[in-house]
Amino acid sequence: MTAPVVTFLSDYGYRDEFVGVCHAVIARRCPAARIIDLTHGVARHDVRAGALTLRAALPYTPAGVHLAIVDPGVGGQRRAIAIATREESRFLLGPDNGLLLGAAAAFGGVGEAFDIGASSEALTPVSPTFHGRDIFSPVAAALADGVKLQELGEPIPADGLVVLPDRGAAQAVGRGDPLAARVLSIDGYGNVALNASTACVGAAALTVETAGAHTDVALGRTFADVAVGELLAYVDSRGTLALAVNRGSAAELLALAVDDVVILRFR
Amino acid sequence: MTAPVVTFLSDYGYRDEFVGVCHAVIARRCPAARIIDLTHGVARHDVRAGALTLRAALPYTPAGVHLAIVDPGVGGQRRAIAIATREESRFLLGPDNGLLLGAAAAFGGVGEAFDIGASSEALTPVSPTFHGRDIFSPVAAALADGVKLQELGEPIPADGLVVLPDRGAAQAVGRGDPLAARVLSIDGYGNVALNASTACVGAAALTVETAGAHTDVALGRTFADVAVGELLAYVDSRGTLALAVNRGSAAELLALAVDDVVILRFR
Amino acid sequence: MTAPVVTFLSDYGYRDEFVGVCHAVIARRCPAARIIDLTHGVARHDVRAGALTLRAALPYTPAGVHLAIVDPGVGGQRRAIAIATREESRFLLGPDNGLLLGAAAAFGGVGEAFDIGASSEALTPVSPTFHGRDIFSPVAAALADGVKLQELGEPIPADGLVVLPDRGAAQAVGRGDPLAARVLSIDGYGNVALNASTACVGAAALTVETAGAHTDVALGRTFADVAVGELLAYVDSRGTLALAVNRGSAAELLALAVDDVVILRFR
Repeated sequence: MTAPVVTFLSDYGYRDEFVGVCHAVIARRCPAARIIDLTHGVARHDVRAGALTLRAALPYTPAGVHLAIVDPGVGGQRRAIAIATREESRFLLGPDNGLLLGAAAAFGGVGEAFDIGASSEALTPVSPTFHGRDIFSPVAAALADGVKLQELGEPIPADGLVVLPDRGAAQAVGRGDPLAARVLSIDGYGNVALNASTACVGAAALTVETAGAHTDVALGRTFADVAVGELLAYVDSRGTLALAVNRGSAAELLALAVDDVVILRFR
Repeated sequence: MTAPVVTFLSDYGYRDEFVGVCHAVIARRCPAARIIDLTHGVARHDVRAGALTLRAALPYTPAGVHLAIVDPGVGGQRRAIAIATREESRFLLGPDNGLLLGAAAAFGGVGEAFDIGASSEALTPVSPTFHGRDIFSPVAAALADGVKLQELGEPIPADGLVVLPDRGAAQAVGRGDPLAARVLSIDGYGNVALNASTACVGAAALTVETAGAHTDVALGRTFADVAVGELLAYVDSRGTLALAVNRGSAAELLALAVDDVVILRFR
Repeated sequence: MTAPVVTFLSDYGYRDEFVGVCHAVIARRCPAARIIDLTHGVARHDVRAGALTLRAALPYTPAGVHLAIVDPGVGGQRRAIAIATREESRFLLGPDNGLLLGAAAAFGGVGEAFDIGASSEALTPVSPTFHGRDIFSPVAAALADGVKLQELGEPIPADGLVVLPDRGAAQAVGRGDPLAARVLSIDGYGNVALNASTACVGAAALTVETAGAHTDVALGRTFADVAVGELLAYVDSRGTLALAVNRGSAAELLALAVDDVVILRFR
């Protein structure tokens, strides 16, 4: 029989015991669970970055319990929630701050939602600043162990969950027309993802305008399509229009940060 | 049957093969062992930071074999030891430099102690600079595999183990009285833990004095108790008085590093 | 029965979902596989650093499937390959850029080689920039699941594989003679490995010349052989001549980076 899977994503980082303690709590409550770390390197407190990363990863994971914690509001008014998706019956657990909903949408959206903040599975006393250890991990482990979601929290309306403000998707444009695109995320290589998934059909190149500088960029498939050190625009592995430098960092070359706006002109 | 658990903490970091090689050595000697990484991001060579982190994590882990390596004296005079705790019969392995004793105290203290530096389980030749690979991991795996501790080393007196110098715990004080508190640790969010677990009963706020600057700080339960960017004092998830900035870094705001002293005045 | 082992090394880093997604893909295709992360902190795009790290780690791992990805040429002309070693029948998977060959040599060299770029196990569509997810992980999982290598790709000549340019090994020299040694790698502690495995039999000390400065260095076994803050030359755990500072960073003290050349004179 296959072990139940718990995937785990957070902004806890790798310096402290936070991730390890959550693993330990899960292993105590459900020794059979297999934990797959998606990443714990999400930018601290950056709920949107965590949501994008979770959304990108989850379709590749086995169905199971999916724990995600980027939780600057821990211990305050925000609820701790568990969601069952409409498709595949996946369970998503985390703070009610929008972190989970993009990923849930990839599985038909939210079927049922529960407030698990007062679950009897929680460790006591609950630390007001470490719900990962005291609420989310034990409830995730109980789910992996076969406990019904209904026994782990109070049902809440799916349409009352907190949604991240929409950043909008840049519209398709004609050649030569300016397109204002926002930086969605920057990965560890310095590749820059933009909110413009398919921006101009049939274009072969574009101009990127940043802080007054204009840079010509080839449209390609992969990094090696341009010379070492050269800029490239391409559709990245998440399906998003992105900028890269072959064996370098586009974020550094263009001095871009998340949320910056660049003006694109396709040619 | 539940797999034997080996927890693993170190200052090896994530850049080199050191952690992975130890996992590999354990997996070869005891394929059934489940390894739980507590963290490998302990500040390099910082035995005290490792000891605090291990002490914080271990009560949440299943009982088992607990490997901890922050070992600037590797290959020199310091002994390689294994400890059996009085309660729960946990096995703690690491250098004899004080790293293990705080955690052992959480389980009734040291029951038995052994010098494992010449264990027949060691890989040969033993590298003088990588006992994690050549001594600690194979001995940990042998323990997980059911070998008796007595067969893995020479008994040594528990009261001869190296103890970290006591930093002292700040005393409780009356309102308005100055309390000199030392920075124990700073986590990845920039939250600053002080050696003052319960410093003034009933106070609602305090003043923090650092390098001549005085800052008023609210006493709260969690980050969201103050506005974004504001300072907060709270009891952290380890039970320690700490300073935080809501969605920010207290260490940055106050320019604090480990071992710095701040003067607190409760109000 | 022991679980099949998949080891995994990359330059994906810890910030993004890349490593987690590969774990997930492997877990879906071969739930029984046990994945051992060697490291994902290889310097971005640094094929040689990845090759050295893989070479150092693999002799300590159980025999199995060994996935290694440092792949700046992903999606371009470079092939995706799988190798069976002559000894121990290990399977090494990764880009055909020299990353795998040093490690293969530790097991008798390449027995058979296959181009797996068009394997039917690949996820579709294959992202041109994330073969780790779409080609290497599913093929590695299929191998772990017992599929024959011959069914996973097209045979290619072993002598046609891409080899990293030889950096040469510094020759043994007599005392007092200058030896130009190159920095092979620098670990997370700042220890500096040189391409001079056994440089002068019987010497007790040496002089290191960097950018005009001459530094006297003791030859020792381990860090604690010199005072805190002092330089030491020693044979590191990979068997390479290296420079270290006791509780400090030799790379910082000597301002050295990978590929720098230092002049050694043994005494």
